[in-house]
Amino acid sequence: MKKIVQNLKSVFSPRTVAIVGASATANKIGNVLLRNFIDGKFPGKVYPVNPKYQEIAGLKCYPSVSSIPGKVDCVIVATPAETVPDIVDDCAKKNAGGVIILSGGFEEVKRYDLAERIKKTAETSGMPVIGPNCLGVFNPYTKVDSIFLPMYKLERPRAGGIAFITQSGAVGSTVLDLAAYYGLGVSKFISYGNSTVLDEADYLEYLMNDKETDIIILYIEGAKDGRKLLEAMKKVNKVKPIIALKAGRGAGGQAAARSHTGNIAGSYLAYQAAFKQAKVTEAEGITEVFDFVKIFHQPKPKGNRIAVITNGGGVGVLTADCIESEGLALAEFSEETKKIIAKILPSYGNVANPLDLVADAGVEAYGKAIDAMMADPGIDALLIIILTQTPPIDERIIHVMTKASDERTKPIATISIGGTYTEAYRKILESKGVPSYNSPNAAVKAMGKLIIYSRYCEQLKKAK
Amino acid sequence: MKKIVQNLKSVFSPRTVAIVGASATANKIGNVLLRNFIDGKFPGKVYPVNPKYQEIAGLKCYPSVSSIPGKVDCVIVATPAETVPDIVDDCAKKNAGGVIILSGGFEEVKRYDLAERIKKTAETSGMPVIGPNCLGVFNPYTKVDSIFLPMYKLERPRAGGIAFITQSGAVGSTVLDLAAYYGLGVSKFISYGNSTVLDEADYLEYLMNDKETDIIILYIEGAKDGRKLLEAMKKVNKVKPIIALKAGRGAGGQAAARSHTGNIAGSYLAYQAAFKQAKVTEAEGITEVFDFVKIFHQPKPKGNRIAVITNGGGVGVLTADCIESEGLALAEFSEETKKIIAKILPSYGNVANPLDLVADAGVEAYGKAIDAMMADPGIDALLIIILTQTPPIDERIIHVMTKASDERTKPIATISIGGTYTEAYRKILESKGVPSYNSPNAAVKAMGKLIIYSRYCEQLKKAK
Repeated sequence: MKKIVQNLKSVFSPRTVAIVGASATANKIGNVLLRNFIDGKFPGKVYPVNPKYQEIAGLKCYPSVSSIPGKVDCVIVATPAETVPDIVDDCAKKNAGGVIILSGGFEEVKRYDLAERIKKTAETSGMPVIGPNCLGVFNPYTKVDSIFLPMYKLERPRAGGIAFITQSGAVGSTVLDLAAYYGLGVSKFISYGNSTVLDEADYLEYLMNDKETDIIILYIEGAKDGRKLLEAMKKVNKVKPIIALKAGRGAGGQAAARSHTGNIAGSYLAYQAAFKQAKVTEAEGITEVFDFVKIFHQPKPKGNRIAVITNGGGVGVLTADCIESEGLALAEFSEETKKIIAKILPSYGNVANPLDLVADAGVEAYGKAIDAMMADPGIDALLIIILTQTPPIDERIIHVMTKASDERTKPIATISIGGTYTEAYRKILESKGVPSYNSPNAAVKAMGKLIIYSRYCEQLKKAK
Repeated sequence: MKKIVQNLKSVFSPRTVAIVGASATANKIGNVLLRNFIDGKFPGKVYPVNPKYQEIAGLKCYPSVSSIPGKVDCVIVATPAETVPDIVDDCAKKNAGGVIILSGGFEEVKRYDLAERIKKTAETSGMPVIGPNCLGVFNPYTKVDSIFLPMYKLERPRAGGIAFITQSGAVGSTVLDLAAYYGLGVSKFISYGNSTVLDEADYLEYLMNDKETDIIILYIEGAKDGRKLLEAMKKVNKVKPIIALKAGRGAGGQAAARSHTGNIAGSYLAYQAAFKQAKVTEAEGITEVFDFVKIFHQPKPKGNRIAVITNGGGVGVLTADCIESEGLALAEFSEETKKIIAKILPSYGNVANPLDLVADAGVEAYGKAIDAMMADPGIDALLIIILTQTPPIDERIIHVMTKASDERTKPIATISIGGTYTEAYRKILESKGVPSYNSPNAAVKAMGKLIIYSRYCEQLKKAK
C-alpha cells in the first residue's frame, strides 16, 4: 500500500492525462473534463478516449487507454459503472500512473462486485485509484482538474498551502468554491468518494510529505479502518495541522452517509476521541472549517492571553464574553502599555481590556495601540475590532493590519461586522493574509483552536 | 412613565425636527445629521439650532429650541455633555415632543449629576428623552435618521417589520448595516445608550402597539430594572417575538459594559432565566440574530418533524447531524410521498430523509419533491439544500422556492454553500422572503428557534 500511495504523484503531477468517456457534446461530463484541461491550460498532453470518436476539440481520440502511444500518467474515468473494471484493467495493462474514477454506481448501490474487481487490479499492479463516486482531483500547481462542475458556477481557488481531503463531492466542491471566494490558496483537492482502494489515511500520509501543503482539511463520513486513520492523524498532525469535519454524527446522519458513499459512519464518540487523541482540530460545520483554517497561517501564540482593541464598545463587550466562554483569558496590560494607551485615548476613554478607542479613533490610534501590545510580554494574541462605518476609519487601516500580521511575532485576527462596504474591507484583509471575521464568536473560537494546537506543538518540541 | 412612553410617537413620526449643534462643516456630526434629513428627503420641517450661525445649508438657523416658531416634535442634541441639561430644560419650556441626546459624557464617565438633571426635567414634563450616549433613531417610514455615520459607509435598510432596540451604538449600527445587506426591512431602530430616562422595557412596551413592527430585536448590556424588563418581555413576546442578545456575560465583559454605558451588566444567569421565563428567543451573537430573525417571517410549524431535500449527499448528512443535535426530528415520509419521490429519483437513488435528489437533479425534481412534502401531514417544516454549482440548477429554482414560501403552509429555509455565484442566489432568495443560509448549522438552529416559539404561541392559544 505504501508504494501505491507514493505512486499518487503521477495523478497529482502528470505530464500526460487520458480522459475516458470524453465527449464532444457541450455540458456533458466528458466534455467539461476535456475543457478543464484545454481551457485550464494544462501544460502536458491530453488524450481523449472514446471509441465513438476519431477526434474531439481538435485532439485525436483513442478507443482505449492501451491504444495511446507512450506513457500515460493519469487516467480520468467518467463512464458507466459496469464498464469501469475493464477500463481499470486496461490501465494496469498499459502501466498507467494512476486512475481517478468519477463514476458512481458501486458500493453506495451495493455493487460490491464491481468495486472488488477494481481493488484487486490496483493492489496487484500497485496502480493508485482515486474514487469511485467522487469529483477527483484539483491541483492548481499542475492544472489537473477533474471537477466536472462549470468554472463559472464553481470558482477554482489560487495555488497555496491548503490541502482538502473530502469524502463527499458536494461538500468538497462547496469548500473549494468558498476557498476561491475567500481568496485562500489551495495545494491539492482530493475528493475520494467510496475509498475503494485508497482511503483518507493514505491521502494524509501522502500530503505529510507534499511540499506544497502546509495545512490539511479532512471531511469524513465514515472510515473503513478507524485504527489506520487514527495512526495517520497522529503522525501527520504533528507535522502539519489537520482540521477535521466529521459527518454522520447521529443516527439519521449515519443512515444518510451509508446511502451516500457506502461507508459506515461509525460511532461519533469514537471519532471525537480519535480527534482528541491525535490533537486534530475538529470543526462543527463547513463555516467553522474556514474560520479555523485561515488563522492557522498566523504565528503560533505562546499562551492564551488575548488583547482586544475596538472602536465600538458593544462589540468589545461581546468579544470579551466569547473570550471567557471559550476558556481564554483577557490579557493584563503592562504599566508601559497602559502609559502609551492613556496618551492615545480621549479624556473620557478608559484604559482597559477590551481597549475601546471609541468611535472617534483614527487609523493612527490603532497603529500605536498595536505596537504597544506587540511589545508587551503579557499579551499572546491580538483581536482587533474595526468597525469600518465610523468616519475616521479609512483604507490606511489595511496597511496597519498587514504590517501587524507580517511582523509575525504574535497572531492577530480582525473582526469587522457590516454590509457591502465592510465586506470589501474584510476581503482585502483576507487577501493580504490577515484573518478577518464577521463575528466575535467566530474569531475567538478560531483563535482558541490556534492556541490549543500551538500548545501541542510546544509540548512536542519539549519532548524532543 | 406610561405617558412618556406614549409620547415617543413625536420622536418617531415628527413633522418638525430641530438639530441642536447643527454645523456647516462637512463630516462634523452636526453636519451629517442635517444632511441625513436633507438628503434623506425628510418630508417635514428641519430647524438647525446653533447660536454661531444665521443659516446652514440654506436653512435658517436658530439660537435655541425655544426661539423656533411653532411646534417642535423632535429635538436631536449633539453638543458637549455640559451643555445638554440646559438644552433639555429649554426643550421642556418649549413643550417639545421629545429629545434624542447623542452626546456622550454622562453616567459612563460618572457624570451622574448631568444625567440626574435630564431625568428630572423629563419626569416633570412628561417629555421623552432617548439616550444620552447613543445613535438615536432611524425610522425608514418617516425618514427620521439621527445616525451620524455616513450613508456610503453604513447602508440604511428599507422599510419593513423588524424593530431594533440596542443599548450599544456600535452593535446597533452594524446590525442596521447587516439588515440592509441582507435586504431585510426595518420598522424602527432605537439606539438608547445610557437609558437615563427611558429604558429597554419602555421601548418594548412602545413597540408592542406599533403597527409597523412585527418582530423585535433587543441588544442589551445591562438593564437598570431587571424585574421591569422581565415583565415587559413576558407581555410583549406573547404578541410579537423578541430575539435578544445579551452582552456582558462574563466578568471581563461585565467590566467592559460598565465603562461603556455606565450600566451594571448583572448576572448572566439571571438574564438567561428571564429570557427562558418570558420565552424570548436568545441569540449568542450578532450572526445568530440575523439567522433567527429572517426565519420568523415564515409560517409557524405545527411540530418539529423536518424534511430535508438536497442535491449533494454530504451536505444532507451534515444537515441531518444538525437536526439531531438541535433536538429536532427527521420526518418519516408517508407512503404517498415515497411513491412520488421514487418516480423523481434516478435508478440509483434512495428514497430517504434527507432526500438526496443527486447532482443530476433539475429544478423540476425540487418542485415535485416540495409539492409532495407540503401535502404530507407527517412533515412540519422543510430544509432545502440547493448546491447551485451543479449544471442542472438554474434561475428557475428561485421561482420554485418563492412559490413554496408564498404558499405559507409550512416554513421553509434554503441552504446554499459557495462563493460569489452562490451568494447571488442567496441574496435573491432573501429579497423574496425565502430564508437562505450558508451553512446547515445556522439553518437548523434558526428553524429550531421558530419551532420553539411556535409551540409557545400554540400553548397561549389553547390557554385562552
